[in-house]
Amino acid sequence: MTDFGVGDGDVGVMKGVIAGIAPDAHIIDITHSVPPQQIASGAWILAAAYRYFPANTVFVCVVDPGVGSTRGAIALHAGEWFFVGPDNGLFSYVLAEQPAHAAALLSNPAYHLQQVSATFHGRDIFAPAGAYLARGAAAILLDLGIAIDPAALKRLEIGQPVRHGDAIEARIIHIDNFGNLITSIPLAMVPDLFDLPQAQITFPAQGKRVDQRRRFFAAGPEDGQPFIFGDSSGYVGIAVRNGNAAKTLGIAHGTAITFVASSN
Amino acid sequence: MTDFGVGDGDVGVMKGVIAGIAPDAHIIDITHSVPPQQIASGAWILAAAYRYFPANTVFVCVVDPGVGSTRGAIALHAGEWFFVGPDNGLFSYVLAEQPAHAAALLSNPAYHLQQVSATFHGRDIFAPAGAYLARGAAAILLDLGIAIDPAALKRLEIGQPVRHGDAIEARIIHIDNFGNLITSIPLAMVPDLFDLPQAQITFPAQGKRVDQRRRFFAAGPEDGQPFIFGDSSGYVGIAVRNGNAAKTLGIAHGTAITFVASSN
Amino acid sequence: MTDFGVGDGDVGVMKGVIAGIAPDAHIIDITHSVPPQQIASGAWILAAAYRYFPANTVFVCVVDPGVGSTRGAIALHAGEWFFVGPDNGLFSYVLAEQPAHAAALLSNPAYHLQQVSATFHGRDIFAPAGAYLARGAAAILLDLGIAIDPAALKRLEIGQPVRHGDAIEARIIHIDNFGNLITSIPLAMVPDLFDLPQAQITFPAQGKRVDQRRRFFAAGPEDGQPFIFGDSSGYVGIAVRNGNAAKTLGIAHGTAITFVASSN
Repeated sequence: MTDFGVGDGDVGVMKGVIAGIAPDAHIIDITHSVPPQQIASGAWILAAAYRYFPANTVFVCVVDPGVGSTRGAIALHAGEWFFVGPDNGLFSYVLAEQPAHAAALLSNPAYHLQQVSATFHGRDIFAPAGAYLARGAAAILLDLGIAIDPAALKRLEIGQPVRHGDAIEARIIHIDNFGNLITSIPLAMVPDLFDLPQAQITFPAQGKRVDQRRRFFAAGPEDGQPFIFGDSSGYVGIAVRNGNAAKTLGIAHGTAITFVASSN
Repeated sequence: MTDFGVGDGDVGVMKGVIAGIAPDAHIIDITHSVPPQQIASGAWILAAAYRYFPANTVFVCVVDPGVGSTRGAIALHAGEWFFVGPDNGLFSYVLAEQPAHAAALLSNPAYHLQQVSATFHGRDIFAPAGAYLARGAAAILLDLGIAIDPAALKRLEIGQPVRHGDAIEARIIHIDNFGNLITSIPLAMVPDLFDLPQAQITFPAQGKRVDQRRRFFAAGPEDGQPFIFGDSSGYVGIAVRNGNAAKTLGIAHGTAITFVASSN
Repeated sequence: MTDFGVGDGDVGVMKGVIAGIAPDAHIIDITHSVPPQQIASGAWILAAAYRYFPANTVFVCVVDPGVGSTRGAIALHAGEWFFVGPDNGLFSYVLAEQPAHAAALLSNPAYHLQQVSATFHGRDIFAPAGAYLARGAAAILLDLGIAIDPAALKRLEIGQPVRHGDAIEARIIHIDNFGNLITSIPLAMVPDLFDLPQAQITFPAQGKRVDQRRRFFAAGPEDGQPFIFGDSSGYVGIAVRNGNAAKTLGIAHGTAITFVASSN
């Protein structure tokens, strides 16, 4: 995953580097159209994707406005997967959702291309690290460079949900192309979402509330009332049938929410 | 092949699912830029492509405006290939051109992802089905769900050509970016196209006729007269040299035509 | 690499043909967004990419405004790699930078698809040739058709650098999206670029001179003075910090330059 686009050959070159080191690796594109230098967008797209890849997949992720500065280049083993990229928050959701087993700075030049440019670490550092991990997995991770404590990795404010009894404090972490509001509450945290007698999401600062639930968009209220649904990304969302929930509710990215379920 | 675009990670997620089930599968993109929800365009792009893939290729095709409704999700064994996607006409050309050996509704949840969303069947149903077929081919097809008669699958009106003696009744099924008119007559149906003493295409309803043939665009009449040619998609076409045949002739998608060849 | 875009299925069809002939080949896209029919752009993108691919990679390259005309279709073994495409200058940098071991016209129909269209040689001639080379490498090259002298292949004027003592005569061969001027001088030709006491690039016809060097964009002079840098493509470049060197200097593609280094 990168923000390079596919107009020039940069993504292809990274794959060429990988093929030279790990000839048997299968290379899959998540997307190369992350909005340029938008780390939060890249983090979200990765969050919605990584769980669907097999164990030991290595994710090489480059959304890196700080290339050439002092930001670290890292490899991370979290959950069943490996991640390579800049230490700028791109792995915030992964770190929030998965146990982090180990991390390393990509400081060992033996695992870089022979010549490292100042501007194309995707090719010179990240692609080689990913390819060596694809060959060697966990055994290679700490050869890539100095071990670092995963707890010290940079994290964006992603509204990690906190449960207090029947309530969950969380945030709006994404507004999709249709204006649907995506919360930071994984569906796995509310497995009984559609079985609970009652559930509501409130926006305390805005004094707004959504208390209807629907399994399908097409089942949404015809009067344009917003409803809670389970987004295919794996998070609880809020939508308006044939409408734009963000505009209807006047809610922006990052807004704090409270989810309250009652089982009686 | 999908109409998802490659701006977010949906196509990548489908490939991740496939890699988890069929790690040795080679995954090739036909395109993910089918015009959104345009089933007829998707059907045509698939028609121009599938013959060039090796036997036992599994085509996972998602142009699916009816996702979540009652349209069926199917797998199809036709000719030497397998096809997976919604039963909405996307395989109309395949069904018209190839013998259909078997088909199944993707009704067996053992071959779905554990959690099936209401909106992303590409990930949850079609990608897994395609991956299991890539592993098991014909032997797996009827495990995927209830067998259905291929004759009952939905078909678009694609102007399937009908021969009456020296004449073939057909339709214009595609107008390409250059304004070339592509007919529904496979070149294989007129293998002697350029050896016949005479050949013409008439548009009965419009009272128009094209009776020149050229092997190359650059050999077309300099006065802008339309001519019959063999399109690289494998179908008979009509073009204007350095011009737009659709505009020159005033002919739209779907127009009925008659091809008449005479061998004397 | 092609200029086909990915909107229709043409690139996918080429990969389908390759998969049928060389099922174990890994297929990597450099880009399919070469500006349409811009051979010089394609040649440059290939030049910046090919060195990063492993030995025996086969590059199938189609930027081919002359398809159907008398331009040759060729395969080339140069350096550690193989190249397939039209003989129209697309391999100019490769030929300038690597020893050419052998070349062949793709004249043997046994290595074409059974039916060769007049307009889609990518599918019918280049993809099969690339796939057979991927299987058979050098041993297959001269089976593909009539051997030709690599010295006879078409080359663009790419400003191949010529050294005269401390001076190198060269050209501006690319202006990138940021307005950076890329010269035809490989960084490998001036390995001590940043260690030399002095270095300058002059534009004799324009009476201009650049005599500062910087390793990073962010280290460029704040007053907007242009500086020499090492571009990640592997060539010497000229940039302006937070600016556009091409506009600042008023320099166009193809301009002749003289690089002068002095070691004292």
